[in-house]
Amino acid sequence: MNQISPALADTASEARQPDLRRVNSNPDFWYPVAWSSDVRKGKTVGVTFAGIPIALVRPEEGGLFALYDRCPHRQVPLSQGIVNGQTVRCCYHGWAFGRSGRCIDVPYLGKGKLPNGVRSYPVREAGGLIFVFPGDPEKAKTVPFPKLAQTDNPAFKTRHFSPRVNCHYTFMHENLMDMNHQFLHRRQMGQIKARFLGQDRGEDFIEARYSFMRSGGQQPLAERLIFGKHKDLNGREQPVEEVVTIRTEYPYQTLRITDKDGDLIMDLWAAYVPVDKDQRVTQSFGLLSVLRPKTPLLIDVIWPVLGWFTNRIFLEDKDIVEMEQAAWNEVGYDRNVEIFPIVRELRELLVRCGCPQDVKPAPEPEKKPA
Amino acid sequence: MNQISPALADTASEARQPDLRRVNSNPDFWYPVAWSSDVRKGKTVGVTFAGIPIALVRPEEGGLFALYDRCPHRQVPLSQGIVNGQTVRCCYHGWAFGRSGRCIDVPYLGKGKLPNGVRSYPVREAGGLIFVFPGDPEKAKTVPFPKLAQTDNPAFKTRHFSPRVNCHYTFMHENLMDMNHQFLHRRQMGQIKARFLGQDRGEDFIEARYSFMRSGGQQPLAERLIFGKHKDLNGREQPVEEVVTIRTEYPYQTLRITDKDGDLIMDLWAAYVPVDKDQRVTQSFGLLSVLRPKTPLLIDVIWPVLGWFTNRIFLEDKDIVEMEQAAWNEVGYDRNVEIFPIVRELRELLVRCGCPQDVKPAPEPEKKPA
Amino acid sequence: MNQISPALADTASEARQPDLRRVNSNPDFWYPVAWSSDVRKGKTVGVTFAGIPIALVRPEEGGLFALYDRCPHRQVPLSQGIVNGQTVRCCYHGWAFGRSGRCIDVPYLGKGKLPNGVRSYPVREAGGLIFVFPGDPEKAKTVPFPKLAQTDNPAFKTRHFSPRVNCHYTFMHENLMDMNHQFLHRRQMGQIKARFLGQDRGEDFIEARYSFMRSGGQQPLAERLIFGKHKDLNGREQPVEEVVTIRTEYPYQTLRITDKDGDLIMDLWAAYVPVDKDQRVTQSFGLLSVLRPKTPLLIDVIWPVLGWFTNRIFLEDKDIVEMEQAAWNEVGYDRNVEIFPIVRELRELLVRCGCPQDVKPAPEPEKKPA
Repeated sequence: MNQISPALADTASEARQPDLRRVNSNPDFWYPVAWSSDVRKGKTVGVTFAGIPIALVRPEEGGLFALYDRCPHRQVPLSQGIVNGQTVRCCYHGWAFGRSGRCIDVPYLGKGKLPNGVRSYPVREAGGLIFVFPGDPEKAKTVPFPKLAQTDNPAFKTRHFSPRVNCHYTFMHENLMDMNHQFLHRRQMGQIKARFLGQDRGEDFIEARYSFMRSGGQQPLAERLIFGKHKDLNGREQPVEEVVTIRTEYPYQTLRITDKDGDLIMDLWAAYVPVDKDQRVTQSFGLLSVLRPKTPLLIDVIWPVLGWFTNRIFLEDKDIVEMEQAAWNEVGYDRNVEIFPIVRELRELLVRCGCPQDVKPAPEPEKKPA
Repeated sequence: MNQISPALADTASEARQPDLRRVNSNPDFWYPVAWSSDVRKGKTVGVTFAGIPIALVRPEEGGLFALYDRCPHRQVPLSQGIVNGQTVRCCYHGWAFGRSGRCIDVPYLGKGKLPNGVRSYPVREAGGLIFVFPGDPEKAKTVPFPKLAQTDNPAFKTRHFSPRVNCHYTFMHENLMDMNHQFLHRRQMGQIKARFLGQDRGEDFIEARYSFMRSGGQQPLAERLIFGKHKDLNGREQPVEEVVTIRTEYPYQTLRITDKDGDLIMDLWAAYVPVDKDQRVTQSFGLLSVLRPKTPLLIDVIWPVLGWFTNRIFLEDKDIVEMEQAAWNEVGYDRNVEIFPIVRELRELLVRCGCPQDVKPAPEPEKKPA
Repeated sequence: MNQISPALADTASEARQPDLRRVNSNPDFWYPVAWSSDVRKGKTVGVTFAGIPIALVRPEEGGLFALYDRCPHRQVPLSQGIVNGQTVRCCYHGWAFGRSGRCIDVPYLGKGKLPNGVRSYPVREAGGLIFVFPGDPEKAKTVPFPKLAQTDNPAFKTRHFSPRVNCHYTFMHENLMDMNHQFLHRRQMGQIKARFLGQDRGEDFIEARYSFMRSGGQQPLAERLIFGKHKDLNGREQPVEEVVTIRTEYPYQTLRITDKDGDLIMDLWAAYVPVDKDQRVTQSFGLLSVLRPKTPLLIDVIWPVLGWFTNRIFLEDKDIVEMEQAAWNEVGYDRNVEIFPIVRELRELLVRCGCPQDVKPAPEPEKKPA
């Protein structure tokens, strides 16, 4: 803990540094916005990214497409309309828009006079999630698509979760990265203490490694089922030898646990997607892959316990980050006094990779899409 | 549909044209604010017009009167008080105000020292409605009082309705005027298509005439009961020959249906009254007069069906105009791309006859009313 | 009523006079913030004074202490934490703060590097209430502590109440001081009329004395039980001879009733504590001491009736002051036309003793508390 850089000691008060809670998510990435199973064939669903309404449309035949979710005529959501072949038809006056956003039909107007359409968004489906690229569509071709935990590895079973949290997405990154917050989970986890093992960083990522030591209390059942019981020769519990690696690779975050042989046993991938324009509401999407134990079916037996356990932990995190947001709302600016170097560096990363709040997170719908 | 005027093509972006949703209702008209039956003898009821609180007071003897609904002493609503002879007495310290708004009594003050009173509003009752004149009282003498559907014609039976809708009143006018929105009512009406027959206009009114063609689906029961079943010689359904005339005669709107002989069979009168200061909530009042069929009592039999049917239709309209308002609230300005000339002209009319939002819709209560 | 000073006739419009509803409570006084019984041993409770969050902490051993209720690390409420010996430990990362606000421990940091602490507040307990001194702590030593009705007098029995009211605290002072508002309580009290007997005033107090005359209706049971039945020789009810003295001694208010011999029979003490930053929500604390009748136990019998009666009266007052606040919110400024001299003088007192709204009611938490 002696690496505290004096240069960063008063981050919040430095005029050059923007308030972290006013740094918007960078739209030039792939963001999950819904589960694939939520948009059935022949249906349309409305979501938002940072206040931008997006209609996800799945025709009976052919792939999903994503359009700006306001009919250019009277601005009502296209996602309230009906899917009609390869178009979505506005529920109000029946204007129809195709996959590219072009206006295909106005029932009471000649084909030669059709008005402008709406913007479309690049869309991809993977790991059970629907991703859109809300930023510059040109960049969608080159910006790498994330690896989604172990969703494509049959040795792992993957749990889906998608809680909505009333806070800026940056609180979520800080919460997970700072493992000194185990005090918060004392009722679920007993007394455990994080040991910081080291870190790694680059232009767009930061990674922290920890091990954990039980300093009191009982090992929870879910933890025991996954990691096994740790006892020494005298029957006393031993230090856990797993290594927990938390990594923010902008804009995603992962938590990976390896056993004493360095083999991966748990892999969590999470994305924190801003819902509203001010980005004070976050839709989280998480994929938690757990290595299947050697005993067949054991994973299915422990699955509900694991779900219950992770949910309890998560609710405590949700409460605390919402309290942080509430304090920010009242105070009006970020007054945190951070002493942990890895969190300070994470904050710099989030400022560096995000967008200042006055930069528009996505362009206005275009006039004449192709 | 080839009359689209290029000069109007980008109305919303023209700096000279105010945003239609920021144009306030012109207060120099008679506006309904309550049903007569809602203000019983010896009672007082509080309403608002564009955020202006108005107390309607009905003494045991003599006609209704209307006062600014804040006691000048401590600003609490007079409509929370009690009716006392020809006065309303504030519930707090018992100050009493007469029909003209003059302060008549302060229980703990000599008659010679009575303070200023409150403003009174011209008030009229007709067709089961209470109307006030919120603007310049001098104009109340000359501004024409509207004709209220067929409320005074025994050949018609009249239905009352008064839904509150969370949108600017102008959305209501546009919704009814543009009959191309039948797509919205496809579940209630089946597939019908409006045919635009022509229009008429003047300084303070605009009128559109339509006929309707069924292009698919079944004729609804309520429609059939009123208009009869349309079949051709081969038993196929025929085009409907009724003419629907929609007219905005500022600030009111009517929809009249005439049969193939040009006789009136249905007459709807509606007023859209702003509730709040920003005029984003509208209290509608509607009078729907239906010609009694020749068979006695038939009108009473079909009345509930007609009520249910019109209510279903109306709820769809309410949902859609509230979505339009929600979009306006998010976007912050009117971004509609209107292609239908009659709606463009309606919008010009509403701007021309309304008041820019920074013009006070009604004067402050006066110092010493007569 | 002929003392109306013309110089005060247009108070609200005078530019020099601030709007009374924008005058903040002066923080340099002792304010009750909770009942002692609400903060049990080993527990912490969060309250606010004018938007300032304050954690009340009661260790198992030793007296209560009060700290600024935001952990300096991440601003979450310390009152969500746990009491640990003579410290409160933040629930998130376990930082611990002592009685003076000093940071005592960060579990993952060396003792030599502990960060700044939080501000502490002087605290006192009396009459069943917890008081804090939100202003300059130096002044806490000299500013007099209020006399709390007859809480220390065994001849009286004291009732506690603490309703929250959605209005500025000044409406509460005016409501009680102006006894001409008995019209409001006509359903509870019947027709009684206040007679103004005289007043007294000083730099920081104002006092009004009234007697009451029943002009109609029945004497309520609770009133009769406390004061006895008033009848003249012919069995008709007589004027009540008790004197009611209402006094605002900034920032508190009292109402005392003496019988015809001048002996105190009822003593009410009240404080109106602003909850939110804008001071539009008031947490009232009241202590109502009633002289025990000579018949033993009678006080216990009438106690519930008295409670019910005072509660009914109070709810009417709560409704009316909330209507006053609602009117102020809509109008945007204080437009009251006050004609009663004692209320005018009360208003001047409240302006004189309070703080203009742009003066911070309490300093920011300090950097390094001792």
